[in-house]
Amino acid sequence: MPRGPTLAEQLAAKQRQISVAEFFERNRQILGFDNPQRALLTTVKEAVDNSLDAAEEARVLPEVDVEIAREESGPDRFRVIVSDNGPGILKREIPNVFGRLLYGSRFHANRQSRGQQGIGISAAVLYSGLTTARPVRVTSKVAEEEAAHVLDLVLDTQKNLPRTVRDELELWDRPHGTRIELVLKAKYLRSRQSPLEYLRGTAIVNPHARLTFREPDGTRTTFERASTETPPVSKEVLPHPYGLELGEFATILKQSAERTLREALPKRLAGVTPRALREVLERAKLTGAEAPGDLHGPPLEGLLAALHEVSMLPPSTDALSPIGAVLIKRGLRNVLGELRPEFYAPPVSRAPKVRAGAPFLVEVGLVYGGALPADQPIQLLRFANRVPLLFQQGACAITTAVGAVDWRRYGLDQRGGAGLPVGPCILLVHVASTRLPYTSESKEALAEDPELLKELQLALQVVARSLKGHISRKTRRAYASEKFTIIRRILPQIAEKASGLVGESVPDLTPVITEIMNVVTLETAGPEGPNPAPGLTATVTNYTARPRVLELFVEMPPELLRASSFEPAPDGSEAGLGRAWWTLPKLAPNGHAEVRLRAAAGTEVDGNDLDWYVAGVDEAHLLGAEPLPGDWDVRLPRQLVEAAEAAEVAAAAPDADEGGEVDYDGAEKAAELEEDD
Amino acid sequence: MPRGPTLAEQLAAKQRQISVAEFFERNRQILGFDNPQRALLTTVKEAVDNSLDAAEEARVLPEVDVEIAREESGPDRFRVIVSDNGPGILKREIPNVFGRLLYGSRFHANRQSRGQQGIGISAAVLYSGLTTARPVRVTSKVAEEEAAHVLDLVLDTQKNLPRTVRDELELWDRPHGTRIELVLKAKYLRSRQSPLEYLRGTAIVNPHARLTFREPDGTRTTFERASTETPPVSKEVLPHPYGLELGEFATILKQSAERTLREALPKRLAGVTPRALREVLERAKLTGAEAPGDLHGPPLEGLLAALHEVSMLPPSTDALSPIGAVLIKRGLRNVLGELRPEFYAPPVSRAPKVRAGAPFLVEVGLVYGGALPADQPIQLLRFANRVPLLFQQGACAITTAVGAVDWRRYGLDQRGGAGLPVGPCILLVHVASTRLPYTSESKEALAEDPELLKELQLALQVVARSLKGHISRKTRRAYASEKFTIIRRILPQIAEKASGLVGESVPDLTPVITEIMNVVTLETAGPEGPNPAPGLTATVTNYTARPRVLELFVEMPPELLRASSFEPAPDGSEAGLGRAWWTLPKLAPNGHAEVRLRAAAGTEVDGNDLDWYVAGVDEAHLLGAEPLPGDWDVRLPRQLVEAAEAAEVAAAAPDADEGGEVDYDGAEKAAELEEDD
Repeated sequence: MPRGPTLAEQLAAKQRQISVAEFFERNRQILGFDNPQRALLTTVKEAVDNSLDAAEEARVLPEVDVEIAREESGPDRFRVIVSDNGPGILKREIPNVFGRLLYGSRFHANRQSRGQQGIGISAAVLYSGLTTARPVRVTSKVAEEEAAHVLDLVLDTQKNLPRTVRDELELWDRPHGTRIELVLKAKYLRSRQSPLEYLRGTAIVNPHARLTFREPDGTRTTFERASTETPPVSKEVLPHPYGLELGEFATILKQSAERTLREALPKRLAGVTPRALREVLERAKLTGAEAPGDLHGPPLEGLLAALHEVSMLPPSTDALSPIGAVLIKRGLRNVLGELRPEFYAPPVSRAPKVRAGAPFLVEVGLVYGGALPADQPIQLLRFANRVPLLFQQGACAITTAVGAVDWRRYGLDQRGGAGLPVGPCILLVHVASTRLPYTSESKEALAEDPELLKELQLALQVVARSLKGHISRKTRRAYASEKFTIIRRILPQIAEKASGLVGESVPDLTPVITEIMNVVTLETAGPEGPNPAPGLTATVTNYTARPRVLELFVEMPPELLRASSFEPAPDGSEAGLGRAWWTLPKLAPNGHAEVRLRAAAGTEVDGNDLDWYVAGVDEAHLLGAEPLPGDWDVRLPRQLVEAAEAAEVAAAAPDADEGGEVDYDGAEKAAELEEDD
Repeated sequence: MPRGPTLAEQLAAKQRQISVAEFFERNRQILGFDNPQRALLTTVKEAVDNSLDAAEEARVLPEVDVEIAREESGPDRFRVIVSDNGPGILKREIPNVFGRLLYGSRFHANRQSRGQQGIGISAAVLYSGLTTARPVRVTSKVAEEEAAHVLDLVLDTQKNLPRTVRDELELWDRPHGTRIELVLKAKYLRSRQSPLEYLRGTAIVNPHARLTFREPDGTRTTFERASTETPPVSKEVLPHPYGLELGEFATILKQSAERTLREALPKRLAGVTPRALREVLERAKLTGAEAPGDLHGPPLEGLLAALHEVSMLPPSTDALSPIGAVLIKRGLRNVLGELRPEFYAPPVSRAPKVRAGAPFLVEVGLVYGGALPADQPIQLLRFANRVPLLFQQGACAITTAVGAVDWRRYGLDQRGGAGLPVGPCILLVHVASTRLPYTSESKEALAEDPELLKELQLALQVVARSLKGHISRKTRRAYASEKFTIIRRILPQIAEKASGLVGESVPDLTPVITEIMNVVTLETAGPEGPNPAPGLTATVTNYTARPRVLELFVEMPPELLRASSFEPAPDGSEAGLGRAWWTLPKLAPNGHAEVRLRAAAGTEVDGNDLDWYVAGVDEAHLLGAEPLPGDWDVRLPRQLVEAAEAAEVAAAAPDADEGGEVDYDGAEKAAELEEDD
């Protein structure tokens, strides 16, 4: 007897597969296409990231040109054109690369790259079709072909497959490269989340790239290269056992071609040394002769547990391409423009760690003071695999880690000791990894992975401590500097008045002033005159009551050091580290010494690039330079070594105090090096 | 001549398709599986959401049992079991529903449901396999079969396909339902983001569901039904033209079976009335006889532009299932437990609007004061399609909208007038839609869609204004109440002392006290005595210097009004709105009147459910009740109408001032209704 469909049958009839393109068309906000403004940025970003990745793979210095123009067909339509000098794409791959979601070359490669998902640029093509129903045009030329292929493509949403609607050959003046041109619904604004800001951020962390930008009103901006060295190419590496999940481990073993575990483990996993292999097998109670694919259940779990417990080689840095401390500092200067901050914390570039089998590392830079606004939350610049993150700051692990630091302890204002602190400060944070845990396909925020948060926190604490040191030195110096000013101005006036009253001539106050002031100062000045050569002069003055032998140290970018000459010549230098040092002639009270730097013509010399250090006087009595950091491994001249030994002896005797010394903040740390004469 | 592969060829050789399951296995944080704690919550959430959706489709009152137990195989392994009384799933569909990503019945249905993506529960299966390499067990029984099917499944990541490793029949005592059991790497914590809190939130916005929970330590919690009415079933609706993108519109027309545009438009789109159709075709310069599938280019764009411009019927509410003002208030009381807040703002449930062709609506509730912490950020309860959102608060449009309100204007503390305000306040925000713009597949935050933000802001402003009114009334009342206390206590003491001193008897102070106090009070009390019937008594006292005719109004849940009787009987009522009102007998100074409510046995009467209003005295002179809101459409009795008219005349003459009246805060707004006797 026939019957109607039951409820369960009715429900079953509605079940069906969903194409990944249909899914993302409907949920386009997930891909970064929430609204016309963000859609425009995401489109530019995906295209430029692809161009930079391609240039890196081909080891060419990237030249990327971005153009955004208004379309006549509607007030909310814009044309985006991005072209590069990359290696180009073979014609047969063009449709898939641009017209198919979840298709790409970098997903299965275990190394750092900007695009890892095989979604980005195809998502822009999807959005373009959705909002304007126009095909996109891709032009690509590979070095070995005469002409460029020009393809017009649409993405068939229901099938997630590309359709080529035009296919022609065209001459192109570039030897090789790729160009994409699409029309989309968009909105052009010059905000903090604009294509211009994205390109500025990109230029900061990719100083080897030349980027040009043409805005809809015709304004052209060029970010020139700051470096002509391509960053070291990141290499594919094996997954590291730390953080590997059971399912992933089982797949690795199943796919391995080796016949035994003993052969497979070191070949399929990173960090497994012969010693570690022995220890792992022993701990897992396995012989090593087992076939890798046969392992499952408790033995498999035991093996993975042993791999997690036994100490392995750390992950190789080959797969990662960090920015590095020098370029972070330069990058920060690049953003700051005219703000001239008073303090650059030494940037931190941590050693790689592992999460989920993938190496990652954290880098942090910090600047403080100057014309930065003091009454607003600090500015946080987030970067992931050398890509600026402009959206979803509130959802990002970087923001969480910054907010978890109690910045009040380090000298910034922070409500309740949590959240973004307030103060004249810019923080740059970069996370690099072969697999970044983005919170969504739009790649704008990193998930709160515990390992990642831990590393972020450690790096942030280092720069925070530098900041604290700076602020407390600044407070101490403010005292000293105030005293300096008062004494230099007021004492002579008093002397003059008093002399006038008693009818005597004004006495020489210098010995008195130096005795009271008790500081050594370092001042720098650029050369004066009509056509100055690039260079500067550092002057060290001994405003203490006793003669002193001082050591002067300078650190600068190694290329600047190589292009410079000094007068007098340094007593020692390390060209690779950009360091040089001098033992200055003995300075009597009120005496001074100069060191002059002259750079080769065409070299730019920026005082901010040079860090000056002075040894021979306690840091509390030093103005305008820092005491020598502990990590400098320079051989101190004989005199200073002896003086230091003498000081140690003196420090042991509590009455060995320096005459006339004032303990500014009650925190006199070390006995001062004292020259006996 | 043979040659090696060129660079472009090498790069092309690496291009390949990525399985959606591979993609999500690597990017599991996108699905809500960042860390073991969140993974556990996400698993419970996806299973329970599915159970609730299934029960709603089958129109049964949901019974969902959740159990989390520790596994012996490892300290970080837990077993999750979720079973329901839903319609069950046909055996042939079980593997696909649980073991395949992007497969489901609700993605293509244009109506409100919890699961819309076809990802959720399969993601939990994927994560279970990844972390424990164990199959999951699904038991399901449909009404028309005798026994339940028990299937053990694994998800093949590289193919995104299910594999059944066990298939048996089993007897099950439930007539129909589904049960899923999985082992996963997890961490059990009792935090604000725990399964218990998720179930509590779910109970708030799904009062028709019965939820039970067994924690790993054996603790059992049951959330009983607060209502036995299933919410109205949301129906599938057509897409609305507003916000529809060109690509989507082209697909709709291409798939339509109608031969002409004139037939297709009203059948394929919502809101297209005959008038709107005429106007659209005219504006787009089309005849209506065109074949829908043939339209493209400028005519297609013109037609969509006309559909966006011409005014349409608003979207149907059929597809949405709002919580409603009454249940929001109840839900909030449910969370608050013993905090007894002093103020519940009337909840706001806005009319549906359209974004991207899909209807959506916003609901907001707010409570203030009582034992809520005053020095912390307000607590924000976010809900989307009746599901609590516990993670990614910082990335959610709801949070953005709350932070964009300048709460300082409404009486809360807020740094810089932006961000989450600080104060003793809980905000509940619910967004319902046929298509919610989640920021990622984990469905924990809504994207910042401009239309959504606008609606959120409007709804938030309404409750914020209620809050401001409450806080300013409270301030005013605090004055009045303080005065009240002082007068009642101190005046008699002074009188007694003074009388003693002069040897006179103590005079009757009542007329003096009432003259100075000048307020009307309303107090409520529950019945006293050993076996009280459910009910309460409201007492209105005239502490003003003149006799007054006052009107008393009450508003309560309609079902409570239906189950109640009053003494005296009300002079009028509107059963459907739960409203009743009385003209009280004329009250001499110091005189009072009572209204007693008795409810049928078994009815629960909660004073918080009743809102009292008094007319006949200015709001500045009213304690314990509110003035009648403007939206009450009750016919006022003759006496009050006349008095109001007299007062208008009196207000026109500036010297018609009430004797002895004190202007507490300088904001006396309206002339008081005055009874002439």
